[in-house]
Amino acid sequence: MGRYDIAVIGTGPAGLSAAITGTVRNKKVLLLGSKDLSLKVTKAHKIANYLGLPNAGGEELSAAFQKHIDEMGIEITEDKINAIYGMGDYYVLQGGENVMYEATSVILATGVVAGKPFPGEEENLGRGVSYCATCDAALYRGKNAVVIAYAPKEEPEADFLAEMADHVYYIPMYKEEPQLSEKIEIVRKKPVSMERDGSKMKLVTDDGEILTDGIFILREAISPKQLVPGLVTDGPHVAVDLQMKTNLPGCFACGDIAGTPYQYIKAAGQGNVAALSAVSYLDELKRRSK
Amino acid sequence: MGRYDIAVIGTGPAGLSAAITGTVRNKKVLLLGSKDLSLKVTKAHKIANYLGLPNAGGEELSAAFQKHIDEMGIEITEDKINAIYGMGDYYVLQGGENVMYEATSVILATGVVAGKPFPGEEENLGRGVSYCATCDAALYRGKNAVVIAYAPKEEPEADFLAEMADHVYYIPMYKEEPQLSEKIEIVRKKPVSMERDGSKMKLVTDDGEILTDGIFILREAISPKQLVPGLVTDGPHVAVDLQMKTNLPGCFACGDIAGTPYQYIKAAGQGNVAALSAVSYLDELKRRSK
Repeated sequence: MGRYDIAVIGTGPAGLSAAITGTVRNKKVLLLGSKDLSLKVTKAHKIANYLGLPNAGGEELSAAFQKHIDEMGIEITEDKINAIYGMGDYYVLQGGENVMYEATSVILATGVVAGKPFPGEEENLGRGVSYCATCDAALYRGKNAVVIAYAPKEEPEADFLAEMADHVYYIPMYKEEPQLSEKIEIVRKKPVSMERDGSKMKLVTDDGEILTDGIFILREAISPKQLVPGLVTDGPHVAVDLQMKTNLPGCFACGDIAGTPYQYIKAAGQGNVAALSAVSYLDELKRRSK
Repeated sequence: MGRYDIAVIGTGPAGLSAAITGTVRNKKVLLLGSKDLSLKVTKAHKIANYLGLPNAGGEELSAAFQKHIDEMGIEITEDKINAIYGMGDYYVLQGGENVMYEATSVILATGVVAGKPFPGEEENLGRGVSYCATCDAALYRGKNAVVIAYAPKEEPEADFLAEMADHVYYIPMYKEEPQLSEKIEIVRKKPVSMERDGSKMKLVTDDGEILTDGIFILREAISPKQLVPGLVTDGPHVAVDLQMKTNLPGCFACGDIAGTPYQYIKAAGQGNVAALSAVSYLDELKRRSK
């Protein structure tokens, strides 16, 4: 599919704004995320302070955003990026089912991880804890796994995992009733912590423990340090300057992931700035290569 | 009129967004500027990248902004602020005709001065060069003055000055035909530089010189250093951090005055952030005074 100029990760207001400005500037933009746009926006009750769209409901605001990208012919590639690797003068993005994308610059607009990681989560990342079921499913033939999912849209990942694994426990962290394959056991318990136990992982819940081969935690956003190795963070946020530059050349961040306040109009504004900084970066690369 | 919680100076996207968020947060907001909103917005041809309002014309965007503040009952106080003085835990704002306003916090959203000052302009500020005709008009009884004006809306200032002064030369830096009192002499020359000449000022133009008692330069925005004594700037911009804080406690900046890029959605986003920072500042002041 060739190399994109700008890969924008996230379809909330920051990502959409970045994709729009990048497209206006005639760059080849890859917009990755959910076609449902941001759940945070859609589910919002009333947004009083998005200048120009007074007192909009979440669905109304989402519809206005959708209309904007539709009119500009911007399409969303529905995929979840699990890792981004710097290759010198471009980045490789690892999507679900191991699809790889290439882009000269990257704009992170994935939102912020709500809440703290579970005790034991980060310590065991890659050694029993994973954020991508479809990536690692093949390793679970004949084994069992626990999936902790924060939104119904993660259910297909669990289904895919269940095709390989012997047994899948599914812990929904949301209210809706999961629609899953019959092989999967739905567990309505609250995860408390996780720890290694010999060759297994032990998930401690508010109602007993589960011994398992692996734990998958599927949140709407994954932590930026996990997403981009080498990225400098500031608490749960990516450290940026006023031009939305991170410490990595060609990598920009905007919206909630770039810091507080968590506001739609601020996210849209930062998306615009990030895109223009990416455009400058691309132009500078081109000048230098002449 | 009492003391306001937040004075917002400027009615472009940054100022309007700040006023809206300040009002949502139940603060007493004074919004100062032009009721015509920002000329830069109204006169814009097409704005492709204001997320949620696709491909809007300038007038359409202005109308959407106007509707938003109208629906929230936010009124614009039509005045031009010429100076802002820090008084410890509040600010005094000097308007035209020497009206004074008081506010605990200030948000600068005045836009950026286009182009460089004239040679000799800054050196003679307050000593023959002024940015406010109505403020200094009384000093010009029996004298003559030159007014260099960048927009038709400055014409009443020249008329007011002409009521006091013996003679007023008016140099319009715009295309429209000025509608001025007959006492005023319209001069279609291009100012080049200004310098002191004994007790007079000499204005050098592209077509000869004018010897005068004073030169008034009426731009849409005045330089931030001139507006707020003690403010740290960065070239033509106010130095801010990601929370839109300046070096002065309780003084925030957003939009074009806070740096590039000059974009509507970026300005609106920063206005939101500036207002939330002002809210935090006000809450902190209240906590400390308990």
